[in-house]
Amino acid sequence: MPAYATNMRFKFPIVALALEIVTIILFALFAVYDDGKGHGHSAHSNETHHEEKPLDLYPMFQDVHVMIFIGFGFLMTFLKRYGFSSVGINLLLAAFGLQWGLLMQGIWHLDDGKIKISIFKIINADFSTATVLISFGAVLGKTSPVQLLIMTILEITIFSINEHLVANVLKANDVGASMIIHAYGAYFGLAVARVLYRPGLRNGHENDGSVYHSDMFAMIGTVFLWMFWPSFNSAIAEPGYTQLTAVINTYLSLAACVMSAYAISSLVEHKGKLDMVHIQNATLAGGVAVGTCADMNIEPFGAMLIGLVAGIISTLGFKFLTPILSSNLGIQDTCGVHNLHGMPGILGGLAGIVAVALGKKEGGSAAMQAAALASSLGFALVGGFLTGFIMKLPIWGQPPDQNCFDDSIYWEVPEEEDENEESLAHADHSKNKAEA
Amino acid sequence: MPAYATNMRFKFPIVALALEIVTIILFALFAVYDDGKGHGHSAHSNETHHEEKPLDLYPMFQDVHVMIFIGFGFLMTFLKRYGFSSVGINLLLAAFGLQWGLLMQGIWHLDDGKIKISIFKIINADFSTATVLISFGAVLGKTSPVQLLIMTILEITIFSINEHLVANVLKANDVGASMIIHAYGAYFGLAVARVLYRPGLRNGHENDGSVYHSDMFAMIGTVFLWMFWPSFNSAIAEPGYTQLTAVINTYLSLAACVMSAYAISSLVEHKGKLDMVHIQNATLAGGVAVGTCADMNIEPFGAMLIGLVAGIISTLGFKFLTPILSSNLGIQDTCGVHNLHGMPGILGGLAGIVAVALGKKEGGSAAMQAAALASSLGFALVGGFLTGFIMKLPIWGQPPDQNCFDDSIYWEVPEEEDENEESLAHADHSKNKAEA
Amino acid sequence: MPAYATNMRFKFPIVALALEIVTIILFALFAVYDDGKGHGHSAHSNETHHEEKPLDLYPMFQDVHVMIFIGFGFLMTFLKRYGFSSVGINLLLAAFGLQWGLLMQGIWHLDDGKIKISIFKIINADFSTATVLISFGAVLGKTSPVQLLIMTILEITIFSINEHLVANVLKANDVGASMIIHAYGAYFGLAVARVLYRPGLRNGHENDGSVYHSDMFAMIGTVFLWMFWPSFNSAIAEPGYTQLTAVINTYLSLAACVMSAYAISSLVEHKGKLDMVHIQNATLAGGVAVGTCADMNIEPFGAMLIGLVAGIISTLGFKFLTPILSSNLGIQDTCGVHNLHGMPGILGGLAGIVAVALGKKEGGSAAMQAAALASSLGFALVGGFLTGFIMKLPIWGQPPDQNCFDDSIYWEVPEEEDENEESLAHADHSKNKAEA
Repeated sequence: MPAYATNMRFKFPIVALALEIVTIILFALFAVYDDGKGHGHSAHSNETHHEEKPLDLYPMFQDVHVMIFIGFGFLMTFLKRYGFSSVGINLLLAAFGLQWGLLMQGIWHLDDGKIKISIFKIINADFSTATVLISFGAVLGKTSPVQLLIMTILEITIFSINEHLVANVLKANDVGASMIIHAYGAYFGLAVARVLYRPGLRNGHENDGSVYHSDMFAMIGTVFLWMFWPSFNSAIAEPGYTQLTAVINTYLSLAACVMSAYAISSLVEHKGKLDMVHIQNATLAGGVAVGTCADMNIEPFGAMLIGLVAGIISTLGFKFLTPILSSNLGIQDTCGVHNLHGMPGILGGLAGIVAVALGKKEGGSAAMQAAALASSLGFALVGGFLTGFIMKLPIWGQPPDQNCFDDSIYWEVPEEEDENEESLAHADHSKNKAEA
Repeated sequence: MPAYATNMRFKFPIVALALEIVTIILFALFAVYDDGKGHGHSAHSNETHHEEKPLDLYPMFQDVHVMIFIGFGFLMTFLKRYGFSSVGINLLLAAFGLQWGLLMQGIWHLDDGKIKISIFKIINADFSTATVLISFGAVLGKTSPVQLLIMTILEITIFSINEHLVANVLKANDVGASMIIHAYGAYFGLAVARVLYRPGLRNGHENDGSVYHSDMFAMIGTVFLWMFWPSFNSAIAEPGYTQLTAVINTYLSLAACVMSAYAISSLVEHKGKLDMVHIQNATLAGGVAVGTCADMNIEPFGAMLIGLVAGIISTLGFKFLTPILSSNLGIQDTCGVHNLHGMPGILGGLAGIVAVALGKKEGGSAAMQAAALASSLGFALVGGFLTGFIMKLPIWGQPPDQNCFDDSIYWEVPEEEDENEESLAHADHSKNKAEA
Repeated sequence: MPAYATNMRFKFPIVALALEIVTIILFALFAVYDDGKGHGHSAHSNETHHEEKPLDLYPMFQDVHVMIFIGFGFLMTFLKRYGFSSVGINLLLAAFGLQWGLLMQGIWHLDDGKIKISIFKIINADFSTATVLISFGAVLGKTSPVQLLIMTILEITIFSINEHLVANVLKANDVGASMIIHAYGAYFGLAVARVLYRPGLRNGHENDGSVYHSDMFAMIGTVFLWMFWPSFNSAIAEPGYTQLTAVINTYLSLAACVMSAYAISSLVEHKGKLDMVHIQNATLAGGVAVGTCADMNIEPFGAMLIGLVAGIISTLGFKFLTPILSSNLGIQDTCGVHNLHGMPGILGGLAGIVAVALGKKEGGSAAMQAAALASSLGFALVGGFLTGFIMKLPIWGQPPDQNCFDDSIYWEVPEEEDENEESLAHADHSKNKAEA
């Protein structure tokens, strides 16, 4: 079955090295250091930062960096046997993606024919990888590293087109990227997941779940994402009080979101218990949903209302919608990115339309906000389907159903370790139960 | 036994949502963004920061944020079966507490009838939650989420009164909050623990201890607290060289404290071995104890002496005092907050009195320092007893003795996980031993 | 066998307390706060920072701090039964080392007979501890805490001499310290390991390996090191665009290094699988190798080429060179520091020579760069051998072969824990296999 060729010995090294060498050549041709003499920054914010010192944004950059590599990486370690892949492939994709993102975003904003690399640019490069990491969550455990590198190239390339359209053509506001990162990344990933649908996993997979310690590792990701989200939503905001507004709105939205996520988790679960899946994910929905209007004058209580609603929607999504997507629509969304990034991203886009319509952002246009949301969803779905079909080509390898959600297919997993023993013992035990 | 109603299905969601909605209404009435046009900041420091840019304190805020959510959260994950609650309920209480703290601290410093939210204010809001998280450590494993939300409201409200008294009426110095956060939080929690005394746990509980990996998770909390403590003690210091002094004093006090905590741990333990409980906690006592005089001119060696003594006192407390408190005074202090925050907090208050008396802080008064310490202890004990009695009301639910220190009473714990198997196997094994 | 006296009860506390008290006395004599009125900073960079505010470097300091305490600490937790020691002794050595480093570096740069402590100085103090933590990796699991404290004193003292020589006499460039920290620390540690060679471990040790969860903890260290390395390499660079260059070069070198480390890991491993040892370590070699020329005008693609080569060399080193060092040269390098810090450090020194020769750094001299590399290696090897012989003195204690790589010799390890049960069960199981 060539579609399930799992031996990566030559395929993966060749693809990875070839991509890196091509990337280095492109950097040699186009990339230089920012020397402060350019024509102003531009990205999916259209403010300029002329009076800033070159490292003023560096602490915020590092917060975003932690979200990308620790936050996304550890959030996905909740699976019992997929921690190496979650944090390790996250590192691989983000490390490649940030280089690719610098190029793809840079070509829209050349300065004397060159990409001038600044802290602002590397923040945006990190941002571009977030789309890939979100989509990674949708297909986690069911794809090979080569497939995922292909996805990284395509998703970031398409992202850069949509971002240029939204920020520079439509001139829409999306400072915290509810639309262009979260909704885009989620629906892109869901479209890929749809194309890669596996009927063999219809009834679940024994490794598609957590153990106690893997849930603890995932909480490292959750909490770092939660803490640094104000930096994510404000990093590229206009410096000064606008940036402060973005920090405060995000801080408060997340705090309110925690309360509603916990409340609804307890309400819908058996005996009122809390569910780690909800706590790990839905507590973050407030950061996603307040993104678009983070730098708008929506008042602190407005931000809290957005967070409150996001926490409710997200938790209900995990409980009721994810099973339906899987069984009825053939969308197997491993991490539930639809609930954390998809719906809250759309909520953020809608909140932005309303806020702009209410005059909460100078010079904003509700129609352009709506066009930006539609554009992001359109690029995501079309791009995701196309990318899914390309990823499905047998040449890239793909794990067979029974090896899904299992590190040992792509990693040397310690043979002599205690855990394996347990798993075996446990598997035997389960079997006995089943036979009894 | 209605006092032990463990089903949280309606009670918890209703309380959490009601609190959040009330909070949002209060924010709608009182909270606005800081626009830089106010009458200066004020909090438990009485300096103003007129020439600062709105985000100058943001990196320090994020350090404090990490201490609150990762530091306190993971420090408490040392218990073998209580990691979900430690990090998860820590997130819940802090997320609610920071909102409540913004309101409670804000009403003492209204500006045109409004609370103007700045980075300075959200640092103080984070600080106010620290008192609750310290007290949480004293009652860890023995309280329900609803009880803890009640404690959060009351403790922060009382904290805000004491803080106002100490900073604005007594005009005492407590830049790193040895008195108003650490001593207050510890004795408040110990008073609550006294009221909630459980005779049934007199002889210990099988889950009231660590396993290898839970001790490793706890070290994540310890090390992040240790690293960022200089930010905690200096965040609201007067900008410039005074703030630098606070950083350096805390950096050095913590370093000296590590040496004495390790030395004493080895000295008092069987065969000279190190004890993880001491290492996780007593290494931090230097940060607590140097808090009050962090911004004073005590000289680097003065800070190191304070840290040295704090490490000794704290380790000895864990070894000799905690068992006495439990068996003789009915104070079951799960995390030993008396040793990490209580005694070192008092030491910090006393050091502050001495330092001010020696003229190490311009304009300080030793009598006012002493009054501040007494006030903090008084509010803590009286407030803690009252809060304990309110928390004891059967309506809030409370776990039965046998379900203490166990996540599964309030959380969906993965059923099919390896750990449960082990626990069962282990429990059987222990029983066999006991029967043999 | 007195050389293997494992009881630390009096030896360790006395040594630790005596060292701390001597240190405090020296601080009382020599250390004061920086008041901004000094004659300029100086360290292994010879720039001055007159116009900076006292806390401008504080966020970068905290990044470096995280690398020292979380990064190095958790990176070494990969061993299955040595996590307490890895993160705990790392904390001990670094906490003492930073105090000792402040003194040793400070005596070369006295200001009116005093060491004026600034953020710049505490960054350098943290840096000096990095040499010890690198060497610690080489001897991990085979040394007592007392031996390691002795190593800390000697290694930092010798480091300070070499650093003074390199920066102030030779006036060589080494902003990211490829030579004076990484190469020095690695070869110092390898020389110590050579002297402490244990024939009894020639055929390995059952605890000298990882389990699934210990590899996950190690990834926390890896990712924090990886993310904050741009701060390490730029913290003491000249403020402004030079510092920006150091950030960007490191960011890109690390990204390229991830790609080559993953590619080569897959290429050399059985069935093309990835090996956690490579991923945990070799992904960081790009940060080491770009250190010396981080602030030079090597262009972004130059930094990426350095990272690409570093990732290849480092991974191949782990696969092919480490076994040879162990079996043929008697150098048992537990963490493979030769591959992460040794060879990439030399590569960094060589790259610096080439870059300076090509005129990428104003005022640089290729000969002085070469002298700096030779000096660093010379001090490392001679200092390491001498230190090794001192550490070998029976008085300091040393674990017997069978207790190597095992926390329980120096720590109270939870007796009633699940893991022990497993280990025992597992050990039995292995034995059965072996006997079968």
